Amino acid sequence: MRDAGIQSIKVLIRRDDGLFAGDDCVVVEEPLEIRVNDVSLAVTMRTPGDDEALAVGFLATEGILSGPTDLFDVTRCGDSEADPDALNIVTAYVAPERVKADVLTGRQRYATSACGLCGKATLDSIRTIAPKINSIVGLKPEVLATLPDRLRHAQQVFSRTGGLHAAGVFDVNGELLFSAEDIGRHNAVDKAIGKALLADRWPLDNTILMVSGRAGFEIVQKALMARIPAVASVSAPSSLAVAVAREHNMTLIGFLRGSSFNVYAGPNLAPV
Amino acid sequence: MRDAGIQSIKVLIRRDDGLFAGDDCVVVEEPLEIRVNDVSLAVTMRTPGDDEALAVGFLATEGILSGPTDLFDVTRCGDSEADPDALNIVTAYVAPERVKADVLTGRQRYATSACGLCGKATLDSIRTIAPKINSIVGLKPEVLATLPDRLRHAQQVFSRTGGLHAAGVFDVNGELLFSAEDIGRHNAVDKAIGKALLADRWPLDNTILMVSGRAGFEIVQKALMARIPAVASVSAPSSLAVAVAREHNMTLIGFLRGSSFNVYAGPNLAPV
Repeated sequence: MRDAGIQSIKVLIRRDDGLFAGDDCVVVEEPLEIRVNDVSLAVTMRTPGDDEALAVGFLATEGILSGPTDLFDVTRCGDSEADPDALNIVTAYVAPERVKADVLTGRQRYATSACGLCGKATLDSIRTIAPKINSIVGLKPEVLATLPDRLRHAQQVFSRTGGLHAAGVFDVNGELLFSAEDIGRHNAVDKAIGKALLADRWPLDNTILMVSGRAGFEIVQKALMARIPAVASVSAPSSLAVAVAREHNMTLIGFLRGSSFNVYAGPNLAPV
Repeated sequence: MRDAGIQSIKVLIRRDDGLFAGDDCVVVEEPLEIRVNDVSLAVTMRTPGDDEALAVGFLATEGILSGPTDLFDVTRCGDSEADPDALNIVTAYVAPERVKADVLTGRQRYATSACGLCGKATLDSIRTIAPKINSIVGLKPEVLATLPDRLRHAQQVFSRTGGLHAAGVFDVNGELLFSAEDIGRHNAVDKAIGKALLADRWPLDNTILMVSGRAGFEIVQKALMARIPAVASVSAPSSLAVAVAREHNMTLIGFLRGSSFNVYAGPNLAPV
């Protein structure tokens, strides 16, 4: 396994009094090729680490894996001595009936760091791919208010680069079950969801997905595919995220800062 | 053309003293299908507006359009009365020799809001697709310092939603040539670049691309494809963005805030 997600580099630092040589840490970004039953399916730009979870989470949120029993194995390919890029390839072995022919012939492409729709090159399927979910039960405003700090605490190690997004899956008591970081918001979500699937905690009923960035359609879609009934974000949701959340009985929280937040969908929050 | 990129919705607002009904504005997010010579190529989730520019910019940064002369026409498809979704389809008509067979058979998929690699499901091509560029000449730190404010000023209309990214192309004197906004950072860049191509300002030699978010690999790659020799961001670049910029003589500026910034690549900045 290659070293973690940070690289130190030489930079020039401009301040009012001139230009100085210095060092800075940047987030590592590298492509990961995801294969299914040895066939290449997608390349995503990600921060190395939790690559197997990323692959598994991606396949789950794309509907290829419906749960742990569909997954036979997931493994990093190749020989890192002979071929360094082999480290950037993960293969999942899944139940053959989960892999449609059109995927393998390239007629339907899945990708990438910010996309749950790629290659599904029609508009028709967007609102139909995610199943209905059971609404969250027992979610309390006081617990919600604690989630941003808990997520930040979990990602302390990378905080100095300023370049990583985080995603965490919490239970309704605010306990962090799974978390992950990545340069891509969607990858962070896939990694956290993939960890849950690999740990056989599936589906993620009655949990909350907390994300460090905005909540767009694809974040909500990924939560739906994992049957996560609540999504909370420190920032803004999109119109389509709100529409999909409302359609699927999902609770969608935005601008979660301190004890304040907005409820965009699913107002079933127990009173304080 | 549908109404602009903002939608007002009913929300519940949580404050310390309770939960109140209120209104909020969210950024509109909808899919756009991009077709080339009537063949579907990609679906991207975007904020409506400048859709033709988005399609054209996407095709340019993906290498399908090498310049304005490759583009015969770009048009929104269909009849909005009969089919509302037709508004979410844009077709570009391009020189046939620019469209490789493998694109049209779906072997090589291009997508989406955050991806310049999608469907190119091998790792081989990443560092070879972008041409070398001519380094920027005459870029001054004082001018750089003005870019964030100028870009923010250009996007004032949408600032209240907190959910839109902006991209602007500036000349070395700090004049804003083209700008655009979108819920996706990469779409904002494609829109600004597409506007330049549609205005026959191509390639974008000796200009600066300023982005409101982070500068990952794909932002740098898009700039390279438009031959933009400098990229500036208010936030962090990634390791791969730095590597690609250095390889291609591109100037890469991060954490541009006030008169301070970091130079990650191409330190040819004229002294004050």
